[in-house]
Amino acid sequence: DSKLKVFSLNSNPELAEEIAENIGTDLGKCTVTRFSDGEIQINIDESIRGCDVYVVQSTCAPVNQHIMELLIMIDALKRASARTINIVMPYYGYARQDRKARAREPITAKLVANLLETAGASRVIMLDLHAPQIQGFFDMPIDHLVGVPILSDYFEEKNFEDVVIVSPDHGGVTRARKMADRLKAPIAIIDKRRPRPNVAEVMNIVGNIEGKTAIMIDDIIDTAGTITLAANALVENGAKDVYACCTHPVLSGPAIDRIDNSTIKELVVTNTIPLGEDKESEKITQLSVAPLISEAIIRVHERQSVSILFD
Amino acid sequence: DSKLKVFSLNSNPELAEEIAENIGTDLGKCTVTRFSDGEIQINIDESIRGCDVYVVQSTCAPVNQHIMELLIMIDALKRASARTINIVMPYYGYARQDRKARAREPITAKLVANLLETAGASRVIMLDLHAPQIQGFFDMPIDHLVGVPILSDYFEEKNFEDVVIVSPDHGGVTRARKMADRLKAPIAIIDKRRPRPNVAEVMNIVGNIEGKTAIMIDDIIDTAGTITLAANALVENGAKDVYACCTHPVLSGPAIDRIDNSTIKELVVTNTIPLGEDKESEKITQLSVAPLISEAIIRVHERQSVSILFD
Ligand SMILES: Nc1ncnc2c1ncn2[C@@H]1O[C@H](COP(=O)(O)O)[C@@H](O)[C@H]1O
Ligand SMILES: Nc1ncnc2c1ncn2[C@@H]1O[C@H](COP(=O)(O)O)[C@@H](O)[C@H]1O
Repeated sequence: DSKLKVFSLNSNPELAEEIAENIGTDLGKCTVTRFSDGEIQINIDESIRGCDVYVVQSTCAPVNQHIMELLIMIDALKRASARTINIVMPYYGYARQDRKARAREPITAKLVANLLETAGASRVIMLDLHAPQIQGFFDMPIDHLVGVPILSDYFEEKNFEDVVIVSPDHGGVTRARKMADRLKAPIAIIDKRRPRPNVAEVMNIVGNIEGKTAIMIDDIIDTAGTITLAANALVENGAKDVYACCTHPVLSGPAIDRIDNSTIKELVVTNTIPLGEDKESEKITQLSVAPLISEAIIRVHERQSVSILFD
Repeated sequence: DSKLKVFSLNSNPELAEEIAENIGTDLGKCTVTRFSDGEIQINIDESIRGCDVYVVQSTCAPVNQHIMELLIMIDALKRASARTINIVMPYYGYARQDRKARAREPITAKLVANLLETAGASRVIMLDLHAPQIQGFFDMPIDHLVGVPILSDYFEEKNFEDVVIVSPDHGGVTRARKMADRLKAPIAIIDKRRPRPNVAEVMNIVGNIEGKTAIMIDDIIDTAGTITLAANALVENGAKDVYACCTHPVLSGPAIDRIDNSTIKELVVTNTIPLGEDKESEKITQLSVAPLISEAIIRVHERQSVSILFD
């Protein structure tokens, strides 16, 4: 049987470390630095000939840097005769650019899939894609894990009495439904609409939230505009407490300020994206996806079905 | 006949503007910005259906940003039904990573070629590649222009009396020979070698430089270590004055300080890479490659041979 090796690039070294520990291996030795002019320099410092290599890299900010690091690493692994090159991409950058919403736009999520394939990836393990259709952008095996169980388990332990799971928009109802099933709770939907052009959006709530503990769930929270406005709407309409959770804490720009100043009591996220110094808030709880990903890697390597990790 | 359109991305807008002016057209309208999380957002703001599009982008620092901008732009142009997508890349980033110098290194110059092809480029116009072999990394037409005539013409006008063209290393002798032919001057070579391991390099000069005006020529000047040490060696060995020139002024890290404090009287570069505020020096003269590139674009578009621009 061929040897399993886990390598980390620069986006999420703590998560990679945790994954390697769970699997019971050391991280592969490689040097990923920059030349004086900013070009990425990669050297793999141990033989990987004939190995099944797993590279952990989230394409979070700085996204272009992290994508190029990954592509260059794949190129180096390919030329160093890896048997398979398995990309573990807990967060898939550019996932929101997955269709032409306007004329003459790129579909960057598809471009990134093509780039990974061209560089020489054999497989990608991903978590909560913004749209599951992105799997079809690849012509290689994709293992698509979901974070809902991790988030649900956390809230289950809180033993809230009267819970409602809220989707902050129409696109996220399926995800909210999954969480509601696990917590045996009803769902509600924030129904945003613009009555007339150039008039502020109205946040209507479909479903009963009065007196309940509302838990909003989303895949990505970026600038946190939607989620904090939704929280206000929930409170104004009689929710008892408002919690929020998401898999991918992008949290760019005004996000932390907005969350700190919002009616959200606690925001629960995972570590697909590291929070770092500029993203600290007392309201944020971060759960690890390392056990889930380690399990997936072991199952892939031992040719066992990964589908039990899908829900 | 199909319409020619020139677009600029963010690496070198002044050069693109100059090229468009020379060709007698306006730059194509497009918006290339960033989302809050740093992802690149591109929208092409005019129809390019059936057009021959020329995109001007040097992949200089921040190189990963500029490569991704270019790939995403190509994707957008392809989906917007451009007839041909011609990349004008005055400076080719990652050109120095063009072979496995050590075990388990990537060949990023080849990766970049593959990425451009995957995204949908039809042709690339380049200038003074670090190694001409990089042309073979592409399976599409490449027009490889040279900057030696521009640099030579500048020095020709100076009417120096007793000139010698110096190659700062063995790799650059062919380039020095070309310049020497144009200036009807002899050549010399800086012959660096390390007498024993862990002993400082010795700079030996092959050829007669005594009492002469030495002009060093290179393709890239990056940290300027080699060129400033070479200048000292030339002065110590009796050169009257030392000038330096190169096509691509990367000038990273300590470069400007080193040049300012060196025995180099003047450094002549082109604008394949913009100099910007942090790269200002009274010693630097910048010449434009816009006339050369505009001529190449017009010839490509009118299906005329570009080979007269090769020397
Ligand atoms: N990084 C990003 N930040 C904000 N918006 C984005 C980003 N990438 C793509 N978009 C836009 O978000 C929209 C898709 O978001 P969604 O409707 O949630 O799938 C598209 O109109 C995209 O142009
Ligand atoms: N951006 C860069 N800055 C400095 N050195 C580099 C860079 N890219 C590649 N190299 C190294 O430069 C060497 C090639 O330079 P050369 O011998 O001039 O062709 C290789 O050993 C590369 O590893």
